Amino acid sequence: MNKNPWRLAARTERMNPSVIREILKLTELPGIISLAGGLPSPDTFPIEAMREATTRVLRDAPREALQYAASEGYAPLREWVAAEMTTQGLQADASQVLITTGSQQGLDLVGKALIDAGSKVAVESPTYLGALQAFTPYEPEFVAVPCDEEGPLPEALTYDASGARFLYALPNFQNPSGRSMGGARRDALVQSAQSIGLPIVEDNPYGDLWFDAAPAAPIASRWQEGTIYLGSFSKVLAPGLRLGYVIAPAAVLPKLLQAKQAADLHTPGFNQRVVHEVIKDGFLRQHVPTIRARYKAQRDAMQAALVAHLPQSGPRACHWNVPGGGMFFWVELPKDVDAEALLPRAVERGVAFVPGAPFFAGAPMKNTLRLSFVTVAPEAIERGIRALAAALETAP
Amino acid sequence: MNKNPWRLAARTERMNPSVIREILKLTELPGIISLAGGLPSPDTFPIEAMREATTRVLRDAPREALQYAASEGYAPLREWVAAEMTTQGLQADASQVLITTGSQQGLDLVGKALIDAGSKVAVESPTYLGALQAFTPYEPEFVAVPCDEEGPLPEALTYDASGARFLYALPNFQNPSGRSMGGARRDALVQSAQSIGLPIVEDNPYGDLWFDAAPAAPIASRWQEGTIYLGSFSKVLAPGLRLGYVIAPAAVLPKLLQAKQAADLHTPGFNQRVVHEVIKDGFLRQHVPTIRARYKAQRDAMQAALVAHLPQSGPRACHWNVPGGGMFFWVELPKDVDAEALLPRAVERGVAFVPGAPFFAGAPMKNTLRLSFVTVAPEAIERGIRALAAALETAP
Repeated sequence: MNKNPWRLAARTERMNPSVIREILKLTELPGIISLAGGLPSPDTFPIEAMREATTRVLRDAPREALQYAASEGYAPLREWVAAEMTTQGLQADASQVLITTGSQQGLDLVGKALIDAGSKVAVESPTYLGALQAFTPYEPEFVAVPCDEEGPLPEALTYDASGARFLYALPNFQNPSGRSMGGARRDALVQSAQSIGLPIVEDNPYGDLWFDAAPAAPIASRWQEGTIYLGSFSKVLAPGLRLGYVIAPAAVLPKLLQAKQAADLHTPGFNQRVVHEVIKDGFLRQHVPTIRARYKAQRDAMQAALVAHLPQSGPRACHWNVPGGGMFFWVELPKDVDAEALLPRAVERGVAFVPGAPFFAGAPMKNTLRLSFVTVAPEAIERGIRALAAALETAP
Repeated sequence: MNKNPWRLAARTERMNPSVIREILKLTELPGIISLAGGLPSPDTFPIEAMREATTRVLRDAPREALQYAASEGYAPLREWVAAEMTTQGLQADASQVLITTGSQQGLDLVGKALIDAGSKVAVESPTYLGALQAFTPYEPEFVAVPCDEEGPLPEALTYDASGARFLYALPNFQNPSGRSMGGARRDALVQSAQSIGLPIVEDNPYGDLWFDAAPAAPIASRWQEGTIYLGSFSKVLAPGLRLGYVIAPAAVLPKLLQAKQAADLHTPGFNQRVVHEVIKDGFLRQHVPTIRARYKAQRDAMQAALVAHLPQSGPRACHWNVPGGGMFFWVELPKDVDAEALLPRAVERGVAFVPGAPFFAGAPMKNTLRLSFVTVAPEAIERGIRALAAALETAP
C-alpha cells in the first residue's frame, strides 16, 4: 500500500503558512536590525514577580494548579478581568469571562461559533493577519471595510458589511496600522452596526500600551449585547504564558465555552494561577507605566528617525501616522514602490520590516510596510531607519 | 435595537455541554465517593520536581520562556518525544513532532485538517467522549465500528469504515472501556485499514500506565505513513500543564501545523521548558513506575470489591473486564438496567459513576457504566462499590 491514504479537508486549501513567519525566518540573520517582529520587548517581562508567583502557587496550591480545571477559567482570574474591565468602562460580570489560551484562541473560538462556509465576515483594511488566519479555516468570505485614519467608516458598513456575521475591529493602536478610533467614531460605528444588526468582535491586545492619553472606552461598553471583547496578557506581562480572555454576551458565550472545551479542555491552570498571583494586588498599576515609558521613548526615536531620513514631500514622499500607543508604525511608500520587492534590498543594508500586503483581506496596498519600534533600542532604530531610507533611494 | 444580532454557525447546533462535566458537577457533593472522574490522582504530581524545574527555567532562560515561540514547539522537547517514541518502537524524527496544548488540542487539529461537513469518521464503540466533542464541530458523520474485548474488529472495517476520513482508535487501556489491543490485533487492523486506504488516528494517553506488561508497539509503528499518533504528559506528569503532542506523517503535518498557528500560535513556552527540564535526565523512568504501582493497587482493590459485591451469575449478573492499566473499569449491568436511571439512586447511597451511554457514537448500551479507580483510596473504593451494589439491588 504505497498510495497516500490521507484526504484533507477542503478548508486546508485556504490555509497557508504564515507569510510573516516566513519573512521573520529570513530576517533573523545575524547583524540585521529587525523592525519586522511583532514581539514585545523581553526587557518588559516581570521575571522577578513571576519567580515569586510560581513559588507561591507551587507552595500553596500545587495540586489544584497541576490538576484538570474548569473550561471557563480560574474563577479569581475571571473576577479580576471583570473588575478591571469595569474600571475601563465595560461593566462585565465574571460569568461573562472565558479565559483563553492566548487571545489567538479567542479568535479561533469566535470563528468556530459564528462562521459557516461562505459566511460574510467584515474586517478592517488593513487588518490583523492572525485574525485572518484564525477565521480562514471556517471558510468565510472576507469583506474589507473602507477605513480612514480612525478605522472603519461607519457609513461604509451599511453597504459593505450588511449581512456579515460580524465586523472584526481592533480599535486601539491597530496591528498593523497603529491607528486608533476616538470615542465619537466608536459611537458612530456602533450606531451604524446596530442599524443593520451587525455584531462586532472587538480585539484589544494593545489598549493598555498608550503613551499620551488613555483610549476611549471599549466598543463593547457602548453595545454590550452586540459585542464580543477579546483581551490579552501577552503585551502587559508576557506572551509565552499564552493567556487571553473573551468577554461575551449571553447569546454566544455558551457556544464559545463548548468550543473551548472541544479545543483544549481548558487553559493551563498553572499559568492562570501564576498570572493571578502576579497581578492580584495591583502589580500592573506599577508595571504597565514602565512599559509605556519605554515604548514611548522608542516610538519617539522612530518618529525622529523617520522625519530625519524619509522624504515627506516631493515625488518620493512617504506618509505615516504617529501611533499614540502600541507597537507599530505603518508607512505608505510612494505608490510605485512594492514593499515586498524592497525587503531584500533593505535586508542587504541591514534592516528588516514586514511588507503590508498580507494584512489586506481585499486588494492589497503593496506600497505599505509595518515597522515595530518595541524590540530594538533607540540607537538601533535610528540606524535601521537610515538603512531603510538608503534602500528606498535605490528603489526603481 | 433590542433584537439579538448574533447568528451562530450551523455547527453549533451539534455542539452541546459535556454530559460528563454536568454529571461531575452533580456528583461533587460532599460525602460522595466519586468513581466518576477521569482525573489522575494529584498524589502522583511531581511537585518538588516542578518547583526545581520552574526555578531553573526562570533563572536560566526567563526571557526565552516568556516570549512568543515556534508553533511547532520547543525543539529539545520535540527531540525528547521523538527519542522516547523510538524506544517504544515508533521511529519518529523530531521534525514530525508537533507540541499541542494538551492532546485534546491534537484531536481538534486533526478534525480541522481532515474533516469536511458530512465526512465519515470511524470510531470505536464505545469511544472517548472528548474525541467526539473535538470532531463534532467539523460536522462529520460518525460510524461506530463493532468492537470486541480488544477493540475494533479488523474485518468490520472493510464494510463499516470504508470511505471514512480516518479511524479514531485508543488502543491502550481505552477510555471508557479499559480494553487494549494485542500486537496481533494491531497488525490485523492495520492490514485491513491499508486494504481500504483508511488512515488511523491513534490516541495514547494511558499507554505508560501499564500494570502487568507493557503494551504492544504503537499502531503508528506498523504503518507510519498512514497513522497520526497523539501523546500526552497529562497522565504521567500533570494535566494542568496542558501538554500533549502529535506525531504525523509528512502528508498531513504541514496542515496540522498551520491549524495550530491559527488556533493558539503556540503552546506556552514556559510550560514546555519546565516539562523538558523535569524529564530530560530520565525522571519519568523513576516516576512512572510509582504511578503504576499506586494505580495497580487501586485496580486490585476495585476488582476485589467488584467480585465481592456485584453478582457475576444469575439473572442480575454484571460483567466487566480487568483492565491491564489505565484508569477505568467498564461494567455491563443486566440488560434491563439503565445506568443513567441508576445514578441518582447510587448518589443517594454515597457513590457516583459515569453512565456509559454518552460514550457511544451509535446506538448506546444504556446498561453500561464507567468506574475510575485512580482518584480514591482502596478503602473508599471498597465502600463505593458496596454502595453501588446496594443501589443496583433496588433497581427495578
